[in-house]
Amino acid sequence: MQKTKLESLFVPKSIAIIGASNKEGKVGTVITQNIRELGYRGKVFLVNQSYETLYEQKCYANVDDVEDDIDLAIISVPAKFVVDMIAQSAKKIKNFVIISAGFAEIGKEGEERERELLEIAQKNGLTILGPNCLGFISPAIKLNASFASGMPRSGNIAFVSQSGAIAVSLMDIAKQKNLAFSSIISVGNKMQLDETELLEYFEKDSKTKVIAMYLEGIKNGQAFIEMALRVSKKKPIVILKAGKSSKAQEAISSHTGALAGSDAITDSAFEKAGILRANDLEHFFDLISLLSMNEAPKNNKVAVITNAGGVGVLATDAFEKKEIQLCEFSEKQSQLLASKLPEESSVHNPIDLLGDAKEDRYENILKILEKDDSIGTILSILTPQDQTPVNEIAQVVIKFGKKSKKIMLSSFVGGEKVADAILGLRENGIVNFDFPERAVNCLDAYYKWKKQSSKKDIASEKRKNNVTRMNFVSGVIANAKKEKRSALFFDEASDVMSMYGVPAVLSHAILPKQKIPQKIQYPAVLKVDSDKVLHKSDKQALIVGIQDRKELELAIKKLRKNFPKERFVLQPLQSKQIEIILGIKRDEIFGPVVMYGLGGIYAEIFNKINFIIPPMSQDEIKNSLENGQLGFLFTKTRGQEAYDTEAMVKIISGLIAFAQENPQVKEFDINPLFIYNDKRRASAVDIKIII
Amino acid sequence: MQKTKLESLFVPKSIAIIGASNKEGKVGTVITQNIRELGYRGKVFLVNQSYETLYEQKCYANVDDVEDDIDLAIISVPAKFVVDMIAQSAKKIKNFVIISAGFAEIGKEGEERERELLEIAQKNGLTILGPNCLGFISPAIKLNASFASGMPRSGNIAFVSQSGAIAVSLMDIAKQKNLAFSSIISVGNKMQLDETELLEYFEKDSKTKVIAMYLEGIKNGQAFIEMALRVSKKKPIVILKAGKSSKAQEAISSHTGALAGSDAITDSAFEKAGILRANDLEHFFDLISLLSMNEAPKNNKVAVITNAGGVGVLATDAFEKKEIQLCEFSEKQSQLLASKLPEESSVHNPIDLLGDAKEDRYENILKILEKDDSIGTILSILTPQDQTPVNEIAQVVIKFGKKSKKIMLSSFVGGEKVADAILGLRENGIVNFDFPERAVNCLDAYYKWKKQSSKKDIASEKRKNNVTRMNFVSGVIANAKKEKRSALFFDEASDVMSMYGVPAVLSHAILPKQKIPQKIQYPAVLKVDSDKVLHKSDKQALIVGIQDRKELELAIKKLRKNFPKERFVLQPLQSKQIEIILGIKRDEIFGPVVMYGLGGIYAEIFNKINFIIPPMSQDEIKNSLENGQLGFLFTKTRGQEAYDTEAMVKIISGLIAFAQENPQVKEFDINPLFIYNDKRRASAVDIKIII
Repeated sequence: MQKTKLESLFVPKSIAIIGASNKEGKVGTVITQNIRELGYRGKVFLVNQSYETLYEQKCYANVDDVEDDIDLAIISVPAKFVVDMIAQSAKKIKNFVIISAGFAEIGKEGEERERELLEIAQKNGLTILGPNCLGFISPAIKLNASFASGMPRSGNIAFVSQSGAIAVSLMDIAKQKNLAFSSIISVGNKMQLDETELLEYFEKDSKTKVIAMYLEGIKNGQAFIEMALRVSKKKPIVILKAGKSSKAQEAISSHTGALAGSDAITDSAFEKAGILRANDLEHFFDLISLLSMNEAPKNNKVAVITNAGGVGVLATDAFEKKEIQLCEFSEKQSQLLASKLPEESSVHNPIDLLGDAKEDRYENILKILEKDDSIGTILSILTPQDQTPVNEIAQVVIKFGKKSKKIMLSSFVGGEKVADAILGLRENGIVNFDFPERAVNCLDAYYKWKKQSSKKDIASEKRKNNVTRMNFVSGVIANAKKEKRSALFFDEASDVMSMYGVPAVLSHAILPKQKIPQKIQYPAVLKVDSDKVLHKSDKQALIVGIQDRKELELAIKKLRKNFPKERFVLQPLQSKQIEIILGIKRDEIFGPVVMYGLGGIYAEIFNKINFIIPPMSQDEIKNSLENGQLGFLFTKTRGQEAYDTEAMVKIISGLIAFAQENPQVKEFDINPLFIYNDKRRASAVDIKIII
Repeated sequence: MQKTKLESLFVPKSIAIIGASNKEGKVGTVITQNIRELGYRGKVFLVNQSYETLYEQKCYANVDDVEDDIDLAIISVPAKFVVDMIAQSAKKIKNFVIISAGFAEIGKEGEERERELLEIAQKNGLTILGPNCLGFISPAIKLNASFASGMPRSGNIAFVSQSGAIAVSLMDIAKQKNLAFSSIISVGNKMQLDETELLEYFEKDSKTKVIAMYLEGIKNGQAFIEMALRVSKKKPIVILKAGKSSKAQEAISSHTGALAGSDAITDSAFEKAGILRANDLEHFFDLISLLSMNEAPKNNKVAVITNAGGVGVLATDAFEKKEIQLCEFSEKQSQLLASKLPEESSVHNPIDLLGDAKEDRYENILKILEKDDSIGTILSILTPQDQTPVNEIAQVVIKFGKKSKKIMLSSFVGGEKVADAILGLRENGIVNFDFPERAVNCLDAYYKWKKQSSKKDIASEKRKNNVTRMNFVSGVIANAKKEKRSALFFDEASDVMSMYGVPAVLSHAILPKQKIPQKIQYPAVLKVDSDKVLHKSDKQALIVGIQDRKELELAIKKLRKNFPKERFVLQPLQSKQIEIILGIKRDEIFGPVVMYGLGGIYAEIFNKINFIIPPMSQDEIKNSLENGQLGFLFTKTRGQEAYDTEAMVKIISGLIAFAQENPQVKEFDINPLFIYNDKRRASAVDIKIII
């Protein structure tokens, strides 16, 4: 169903242009001309009350006058007319593209328009792209339903952009780089049609091999990640997500009003979903070029040939800390290579063909490498030395590229001297990187995607809310609120947490004038337990190292002086080993997220923080613990037993449940949680639940 | 003196071409034609026994036959003739460029040739560039004394390359980017003339504003850093240093046989010397372009204008974690900006001029920003939307660039649509970056260089070796060697270190059959002290937590079983706070270097390691401690007193002296050193001195 809907939008048999025009400088004019003049073969109906004919064709006052079926209407009339216009046509037309600006991006008035529109759309089963967008282009049917000029080549890249201007720049760069597209879609305000639905559409779209998106915000983070997780198993998704910095988030909100989530969480979410995140525009183009023109590398081994040692060294540097690696040649292979090269050549990888290499030397070596099944990728580097026949060498690379099952990449490093050769390479499907380092970076990302996408999913069972538990927590919170507290007492928090499988340190509450309990484990720690004292060490609200009953009595007396009415909590001193901090962050995009990291006074210096993006099964959490930033704790290493991973898995799993079942909790953290690797039980020493 | 010497080499009044030729395909032919036909106006003498005339000019059999003075000889005859040829001409000619290959890069035979040459050079006061190089180009006098073709524009970039091929690629790219050079020098094997001497030459060369180098190795690291420290105060030095990875080091040694030092040490040394290190070829070109065409930014504030919100957001992201920052506009300034823009524009920084901006909008805003003295740099971003007058906007940027005292940069993002405009910008001295992120990165590097170069040097007093101390250490080592030991005992090491101001834990040596000393501080630790047991915990050669005399006796008995003949050392257990590791590394390039870092079992995970490159005064060491990776320990922060910085300064200072005075020590480390922030004295718990 869904698929058919989007297909009739993006591959329509007939189009009505509402706001068609021939006046210079009007958006409606550009759209009319783009649709009529660039080769689209479907039916086109022009709609505009001001004309009877336009472009020597009948012009309708109203879509209802059109007697044919209309698959899609493109609207570029002023915002204030749009709602009524769609309401009137909703019976006849099901798909709309609203180019017009003047909606949510301008504030209240526009938001109201979107609300009305959305209601009409839902009632009538409409699909709407935009508003406030550039439109879309479907090169395979030569349909440019946008106000950007030109017709990009038809190919396998689906490009979705939240910025019309970036789409325009991309198309211009794409032309230069010989990129070819299955779709270019400007999503504008994403009132209805958003990145998640488009992912699903491209998943099934046979023309699309690579899904590329420029996003400033994500409308429904959880649905998006779930969808991306599925789609990325089949097709690589490359996203340039703007708004990394807090400054950029300001710029975005003045731009399209999207919510840009915390960047580290976005990173974690993308990683979980198998999305390739581009670092910047250049990386974005590099990745798209590579992915569009090549199958994924069949293994992580790369052979590099070069006519200049220096550039080979720079390429080698780029492999540092990558999964993709320079292959090593066997003794036999090295001898074979040496037999085809001058004595001074290096037959290590990178193979140095020397500065006087002509096309025959490239050809001889490529022939040998081509036959070596252990190599997944060959990168041919060239510097244009005076005796170098640049174009002839490009021809050799093209020849091998065409017949090879390996990835064949090139990096011809130069200016004018290599410009023609690079054009030729591109036209023949060889991706040339201006500098070899960039080839290595992108190849590494492609290889990692392939590895992750071919991994079996660890089944993520759907978690069900536990109503009994939710009721219990609601009761505790209601009680605290009745007492006008903004935080739970430690014993309350500890009871709540125990229902979620999170163990806390055994402790005694000591109320004003209450007797000291008999059985106390020494040495002990006495702390004020109050929503007014959340940072205990700052306010001198704790006493450590209490050795016996006498010291305890003194400690209570001392603390009472400053805190006469507060509740205290008494805990046995925990012998500490590793301190962990845990928290729940309600991300505006991705919903409740569990954060865990290394605690202690240097937590911020070492900055070992991880995010768990639900849903996650226990197996996935385990995997994340072992491979995350704290992996060194949860794996056995020389001189250290692994810390209790199972306990951490249960705690994090409990926190996910807690976060999902109790949206009324405003802030939550455990700091510290002590964990051990000597059979002792992990325990939360302090739990903060702000309500 | 030195300056004159290199000037007569690079700006010669007369040249002899030894190996001049007119046979196609010969290096000598290319050189002859390059020198004769590209505009050089000095005297040129052709030398080749096989000809009487060449190019209708007299050809000499021998340089001695030339009656004029000769400033420079360029030699491209086979390697085997070179030594004799130079020996014969050494009276008449003082400067040589040896193009010929066949020297140190081919192994023993070639190394022998270089040794002989060097002797001749020293005896006769010759200056030799090469051998095994491309030659050099001095564009200001239109002299191309190389076998690369063409004549680059004359300008302010001095480029030194250890790879001829990279020099050729650079020249080709430079043409495209409109870069202009004071010198291009290929140094080849750097037998005599090396990067250090060239730095000194360019320091005084009035044509040179930026010194750019591609290096694979550094010949004399200590001299180089000392020179760079001085030169970088006046002119920025940009270095692309290949060989970051161990793999790359293999590639280098098969390439020119240079020693590529450990990369982290290179980083530290470059940072100390104020050198801008380029990450890769692209970064290298970007930096050179920016530095060549612009004065350093006068402050760290940048204003960004754009006709596309999305690209503005991406630019904003690039400022994250940079010293260079987006400026904030005052209320008044914002109002002024708003008065020149449509209502929907954003007058925050980046200023969004909107997609329909024409040149007037760019002009109006640039006019306002231009007058704002708090802004150091303006970055004009453009995406080529259909209504965008790209070339007209470029003209506006150029107009302001010409009269402005600010740095004026552009980033026109696109392909064909912006190509002409970019050419125009370049020709008029505006550096255009393909993507705005790259502009921000380079600008940040330039700003940091300016900041560092304008800082006053902390005077680095020359350290003098202390002969008494050296004799003492020699004695201890000689004694250990006599006993056939490869390591010092703890008490010996501890005595040695105390002479260098490094305090060690008080301890007792316990020899086989020796009585236990009376006064022992408990709890204590007993360890085997032997050069055969260097990893004590691996070999169960230590017992901790000894509480009293009885336990001590048992411990000694237990250890004796496995180590009947070894010496033991007994130490009071140190209450540990922060563990530091210290070491000395003898770097092949930079000499003895002191390493310090965070110790403990997670040392490798946290990877907080710093290198101190001598010479360094105590003030400089203090500065390095406070601003290095362990800065969080040596500065007072919330909840933590600073650790004893003075003590660490003295220890590191002592280690520098120790390293310099005792080259016979093969390996050295202190692991751990305990440091405190509560008046307790730092102390070395274990000291390893391998001899």
